[in-house]
Amino acid sequence: MVRVSILGASGYTGRELLKILLRHSKAKIAHLTSETYSGKKVSQVHRALGGIIDEKFEDLNISKVAGDSDILFLALPHGKSQKPVAEFLEKGKKVIDFSADYRLNDSLIYKRWYGIEHSYPKLLEKAVYGLPEIHKKEIEKSSLVANPGCYPTGVILGVAPLLSHKLINGNSIIADAKSGVSGAGRKLDLAYHFSECHENLVPYSVGTHRHIPEIEQELSKISQKKITISFTPHLIPMDRGIICTIYASLKVKSSLDRIWGLYREYYREAPFVRILPQSSFPEVKDVVGTNFCEIGMVVDRRTNRIVVITAIDNLVKGASGQAVQNMNLLCGFPETEGLLY
Amino acid sequence: MVRVSILGASGYTGRELLKILLRHSKAKIAHLTSETYSGKKVSQVHRALGGIIDEKFEDLNISKVAGDSDILFLALPHGKSQKPVAEFLEKGKKVIDFSADYRLNDSLIYKRWYGIEHSYPKLLEKAVYGLPEIHKKEIEKSSLVANPGCYPTGVILGVAPLLSHKLINGNSIIADAKSGVSGAGRKLDLAYHFSECHENLVPYSVGTHRHIPEIEQELSKISQKKITISFTPHLIPMDRGIICTIYASLKVKSSLDRIWGLYREYYREAPFVRILPQSSFPEVKDVVGTNFCEIGMVVDRRTNRIVVITAIDNLVKGASGQAVQNMNLLCGFPETEGLLY
Amino acid sequence: MVRVSILGASGYTGRELLKILLRHSKAKIAHLTSETYSGKKVSQVHRALGGIIDEKFEDLNISKVAGDSDILFLALPHGKSQKPVAEFLEKGKKVIDFSADYRLNDSLIYKRWYGIEHSYPKLLEKAVYGLPEIHKKEIEKSSLVANPGCYPTGVILGVAPLLSHKLINGNSIIADAKSGVSGAGRKLDLAYHFSECHENLVPYSVGTHRHIPEIEQELSKISQKKITISFTPHLIPMDRGIICTIYASLKVKSSLDRIWGLYREYYREAPFVRILPQSSFPEVKDVVGTNFCEIGMVVDRRTNRIVVITAIDNLVKGASGQAVQNMNLLCGFPETEGLLY
Amino acid sequence: MVRVSILGASGYTGRELLKILLRHSKAKIAHLTSETYSGKKVSQVHRALGGIIDEKFEDLNISKVAGDSDILFLALPHGKSQKPVAEFLEKGKKVIDFSADYRLNDSLIYKRWYGIEHSYPKLLEKAVYGLPEIHKKEIEKSSLVANPGCYPTGVILGVAPLLSHKLINGNSIIADAKSGVSGAGRKLDLAYHFSECHENLVPYSVGTHRHIPEIEQELSKISQKKITISFTPHLIPMDRGIICTIYASLKVKSSLDRIWGLYREYYREAPFVRILPQSSFPEVKDVVGTNFCEIGMVVDRRTNRIVVITAIDNLVKGASGQAVQNMNLLCGFPETEGLLY
Repeated sequence: MVRVSILGASGYTGRELLKILLRHSKAKIAHLTSETYSGKKVSQVHRALGGIIDEKFEDLNISKVAGDSDILFLALPHGKSQKPVAEFLEKGKKVIDFSADYRLNDSLIYKRWYGIEHSYPKLLEKAVYGLPEIHKKEIEKSSLVANPGCYPTGVILGVAPLLSHKLINGNSIIADAKSGVSGAGRKLDLAYHFSECHENLVPYSVGTHRHIPEIEQELSKISQKKITISFTPHLIPMDRGIICTIYASLKVKSSLDRIWGLYREYYREAPFVRILPQSSFPEVKDVVGTNFCEIGMVVDRRTNRIVVITAIDNLVKGASGQAVQNMNLLCGFPETEGLLY
Repeated sequence: MVRVSILGASGYTGRELLKILLRHSKAKIAHLTSETYSGKKVSQVHRALGGIIDEKFEDLNISKVAGDSDILFLALPHGKSQKPVAEFLEKGKKVIDFSADYRLNDSLIYKRWYGIEHSYPKLLEKAVYGLPEIHKKEIEKSSLVANPGCYPTGVILGVAPLLSHKLINGNSIIADAKSGVSGAGRKLDLAYHFSECHENLVPYSVGTHRHIPEIEQELSKISQKKITISFTPHLIPMDRGIICTIYASLKVKSSLDRIWGLYREYYREAPFVRILPQSSFPEVKDVVGTNFCEIGMVVDRRTNRIVVITAIDNLVKGASGQAVQNMNLLCGFPETEGLLY
Repeated sequence: MVRVSILGASGYTGRELLKILLRHSKAKIAHLTSETYSGKKVSQVHRALGGIIDEKFEDLNISKVAGDSDILFLALPHGKSQKPVAEFLEKGKKVIDFSADYRLNDSLIYKRWYGIEHSYPKLLEKAVYGLPEIHKKEIEKSSLVANPGCYPTGVILGVAPLLSHKLINGNSIIADAKSGVSGAGRKLDLAYHFSECHENLVPYSVGTHRHIPEIEQELSKISQKKITISFTPHLIPMDRGIICTIYASLKVKSSLDRIWGLYREYYREAPFVRILPQSSFPEVKDVVGTNFCEIGMVVDRRTNRIVVITAIDNLVKGASGQAVQNMNLLCGFPETEGLLY
Repeated sequence: MVRVSILGASGYTGRELLKILLRHSKAKIAHLTSETYSGKKVSQVHRALGGIIDEKFEDLNISKVAGDSDILFLALPHGKSQKPVAEFLEKGKKVIDFSADYRLNDSLIYKRWYGIEHSYPKLLEKAVYGLPEIHKKEIEKSSLVANPGCYPTGVILGVAPLLSHKLINGNSIIADAKSGVSGAGRKLDLAYHFSECHENLVPYSVGTHRHIPEIEQELSKISQKKITISFTPHLIPMDRGIICTIYASLKVKSSLDRIWGLYREYYREAPFVRILPQSSFPEVKDVVGTNFCEIGMVVDRRTNRIVVITAIDNLVKGASGQAVQNMNLLCGFPETEGLLY
């Protein structure tokens, strides 16, 4: 049994994380912190947990939280995780950080895209990018896991096998992503007002989204050379789910059969990746509420491109489910504990 | 005053066409046919028109309809328009056809993509592709207008200026399209059942959608060489609207300023194209219920690609509004008659 | 041609009012004011009006606005209309006020429900409740029209014929109302955040909604005795539209035929009321975007109750369309001008 | 460990039942039948279960299914359960039936509302109405549980304490219900087409819905005299969830405090009923995906009515969750097994 605490537990990812931990047979909740709702009962904010959880949100007290916890989940805004992560590590705790603060290996790139100085550049070397399908071994040995962004999870899982087998031209990758509105979190903004989102579809941050350096970093590692991608996110009138439609030019003519086989092989030991039967495509509703990533693909002979489509739940495989998957690896639990029905 | 009739007036495009014609100061409805609802009052099927329109749907009687009409709108399924179009033309009538039957200039390509033999290949030469922003002159002189598909409208308007000015590599075009469910029409299919579409997002016909040859034909004409594109449509949980996100490689480095200026110039006389201010992107809700096509664009220096985004209402600019715009040109009416507030 | 100005034109009702006025053949827009967006182009806020309207929002200058206008539409928050209404009236202008400030005849009731003192109680006597189907004659002669609330429009039109013919027990009326989210306007509130409203249904202000005194006042006038009702509004995951389901006990056994006939008779000269055929019920989608109120009813012999169901678009018949209908009456224009297709 | 089979497992209730059973520590799936999808893999129909369940749907073979099962869940259409229920009972099996076939104690009332003769009227005496909060003791001893309809669950749980304590006039009950579209099941019908339901709200079966006799039967039992209610269902543009807004006249003046206390007391041992704090009202999103029924209430002094609002997930507490709760009682398992996080 590990004792876990969540910092910033009042958002949507906090809520999903709580739901998963309640199902987890080896985790026990110690503290739940929230700046906004400190002192309030968790069930007043996450009303669906009424009658199930009796805790209150607390202010953050690092020593107290560290003293009572083995694993820390930090669901804080970008920039706000840097310091507490460092402090928890110093106290010998294991940390899973939801923010971007420890995802980028290079503090200069972090500064360029997030506009914030990194105060703990040394720690970036210790951080492991928490995509278990790619970095399982490192995660198992790590004490600081940077939980990936939602879009990067969908894009990287979609193209990793292609780059690993050098099947595509790395700089031909175009990822067109579509996300439900919960990805924007619980913050107030007219852009996420029902009457603005509903019966609407909004492209945003075209070519400038902060998930780009994260995707490029990981794809470059896999292909062992620098990759630059086009990435366009869109806001879709649904609450949860992300579809990434990824286009790339095939270097050599390859049959769908062969490529499909390579995907199956690549993810043979990945319990949460479902390679769909050929000519099936992922749909959001088949992954919502689960930690699965579904992948489908088409080889388009007319253009000599491959189109790979992935689907995840942004709040689960794109955030809280992946975090628990990482915790399972950190702690030597079965990888799927708490994450299947 | 022209007398107009609609064949297949009981579908969603029929409903929108009726609404527009009711606002049109120079059109008078003669006949409305429907196989399924013949004999029923229009207002029983299109209930929103209760108290506004008193007509009944009729069975199709070509002679009778032709005798009472100057302009025919055919909103029939693919394959079903071939013959009535030929018959109306023979009687000297002007026809605006919503189906794909007269969109493709080459009957072999028609057969390959639609699986139907074309019985009137000669007529394909007389047909004009009814995208007024590109073919205004031909439309004005034509008697057979093939009203474009919804996706082709969004894609062609998005890339025409780029190809016309030879700014992009023609074979680098990738169009990722997202459509509301009304695009599927009123037919019964579990795929369009509320509980299947809602809170879902479904890619479909990846690389195989029938709008591909239509887009390629028109883009090839503009660029005067054969263009092959990648095209992926997605079903979005909204009723109306299409966003096309289009990627292409720039042949030469060009500034956004310059390209943006060329778009403004290209569409200078197009009353229904709105080139958005730089760094603004089209959203579905700004065009729904209108005949406008909004266009926004980004030049991505990192990848040397341009990303063009267009938005239309699939039932208006993507179908019935465009049909009325074509009628206005055919008849010498002001191009915007009936189509602005 | 009348010159009209809108105060508070940047909200959703302002947008709909603009759309209608653009279609209106006898109205010309003079000034559009907005506290929040003063100085901005209207088409930057109401982006759907891009290329159609070139005006800017201005700060409110009563003298200037009054000097250039014949009719004033005030779409200001409750409490904020009291003073400008008085000032415009003093300058001899005609005013149509969207707020509740002049709807209640009794300033004490106003204070009790809105918590604000009324500074112009004398003016309350001059104000006419702007429900044209009930008060057409008074509206035609008035210079101050209090445009009804959205829910009151749906409820009053639903039960007026029953009370007028003394068919029901006045104190048995229960109105269960369901509204789209646009009714909440454009203000920021977590309750109207997409992820909170979507795939949700929220009862609110149960028995305490501010539209209650307004409904009771009007129903009491019709029945010539004091009426007290139960009223429960619900927030529905749709943008526009209100369904009111109204229950009342029949005083005497009456057939549906007879009552249905009385409704038809009662609204014989009401161009925007559609009494549906027996056994048909109103649906939101048949009235959205229109100024119609649809009414259907059932006589339930088992319980000796009548159930009346009404549907309106909260932004049109429930706000801006009704305001234009009132303007038409004030100015002697045809009642439907600008309000049909 | 009990062996369970599901007849008619391919619908939405079948899918939810499967999900719950997969989490259940004491149930093992034996057979899954489906007329439509027999021979297909379950994961091809319920794609979200891909990689989790490997079974195929089979044709129904009563002997085989009975031989391998202890508990049978029948999710068949009304009328189709009569016979298999009888056959399973004869073979000594325990049955939980989702249809209405065994819900009504009186075969004449069944015939009047469902239009079908009941072939096993004797069995109606053995059937227990499976609302555990009311009939726990009988369910524990029964072998035939008639699983309640979704609306009746929401209405009965809402008014049972009031009738039990004789606080209201039984014939004053009006239940206005709002349901998500999944309540209509997976059958094809234009009424449930996305473009017809979305951004729409549809009242239906006003005063004639088949759940009325079921509600009246149970309320009459509780109050020990015949109760007649008004009931109006509405289709809401959401997938899951039901809100019932219930109005009744108080017999005597009672404070909210007192009544609220009686509700708490009444449901003291009901693990799935949440009585909300005073002045809180149930929302759909707080119960979706759970077996909870939330209840809130208001005492309206102005009208001397009480308004009770309940929320359930129609597919869980309104169908499959309740069925598993009944199974738990039948088998002596903890009542919440498989039904909490």
